[in-house]
Amino acid sequence: MAIGPVSSPGSAWDSSVAESSRRMLEAAIDAFAARGYHATTTRDIATRAGLSPAALYVHFPSKAALLVQISRTGHEAAAELVENSIAGSPDPLGRLRAVVSNFAAWHAEYHQVARVVQQELSALPDDDRREVLRLRQQIERRVEDQLRDGVRIGQMSVDDTRAVARALLSLSVDVARWYVPGGRDTPESIGELYADLATRMVGVR
Amino acid sequence: MAIGPVSSPGSAWDSSVAESSRRMLEAAIDAFAARGYHATTTRDIATRAGLSPAALYVHFPSKAALLVQISRTGHEAAAELVENSIAGSPDPLGRLRAVVSNFAAWHAEYHQVARVVQQELSALPDDDRREVLRLRQQIERRVEDQLRDGVRIGQMSVDDTRAVARALLSLSVDVARWYVPGGRDTPESIGELYADLATRMVGVR
Repeated sequence: MAIGPVSSPGSAWDSSVAESSRRMLEAAIDAFAARGYHATTTRDIATRAGLSPAALYVHFPSKAALLVQISRTGHEAAAELVENSIAGSPDPLGRLRAVVSNFAAWHAEYHQVARVVQQELSALPDDDRREVLRLRQQIERRVEDQLRDGVRIGQMSVDDTRAVARALLSLSVDVARWYVPGGRDTPESIGELYADLATRMVGVR
Repeated sequence: MAIGPVSSPGSAWDSSVAESSRRMLEAAIDAFAARGYHATTTRDIATRAGLSPAALYVHFPSKAALLVQISRTGHEAAAELVENSIAGSPDPLGRLRAVVSNFAAWHAEYHQVARVVQQELSALPDDDRREVLRLRQQIERRVEDQLRDGVRIGQMSVDDTRAVARALLSLSVDVARWYVPGGRDTPESIGELYADLATRMVGVR
């Protein structure tokens, strides 16, 4: 079964980050992933990016500004991916399959971004953390919408749509924790398997 | 359906940590969870535990020793929980349900331990990280055993038993990421829902 209209799971992140900032953000992701946010200095990040701290400051006035940008961009890309997935299918099961498949593949492809964002959620300034949680709730509601629609038209059988929507997203998000690039599993193969598992989880044979 | 012979998901962790070390380990878990391993000092941990650094050193000679103990104890408790769950049921589906239910409930109950262990895996000394990965592989194999047995006797329908075993554990492990104590969901209710989802995921109606 096709996984939806989004040809590459990475497109949503790629398109929303300008090339000039990408190098700095990638250096920050690498540094935060290696040592954690609190133990990383802006000097570490500048060194990894091959820049002087002064050059880094032109784009990002603080370490927190880098984390905020990584976190916002990551969540906005994921939310956009979910909307695009939903828009490409005519029925609830097709939409759910596209969302789960693309969302899981995205978390494999961007496992390092997802890990940093997750691990450093508590380091975000309050306003930014609230915005991130708002985007997460929006994604969860959109998935739950598909389950409710599927139950309403008799396509799915789910008692607790909220809890099952959360479980479906949780399963996909956790791909970022265990995924190893270059192994037997590709983002696409994981996406397809997870769409099949999601189909079973909502009671469709 | 009963979830197996383990009455409390916490028993495996509780029984394996002596009371005298528990206070220090809990202080270390709190500190690592709040600031990350690299940004935490042994002095921070001693202060949280209400001890002098010297008193802490009697039990744990370094910050790394605390992380190793937390990580080993956590993984040994989880592996023991899986074995106990398997031992309590006569057929593959019953065993799988018990494992998933208890494993998910454990990750809710001990979400803070699980988060620290996961986030600081790269901070473990090499030998200890290898031992942790060995325990994880053992748990994954034991779950896959149930899927293969279930397929063999015609109770389950699973093509890629390895990937589905990993997905089932991944779903349960990720409970530690999102679980909030005192909310609508309890460790037990999450365990029951996840046993039902696992039943569907292996193709049983």
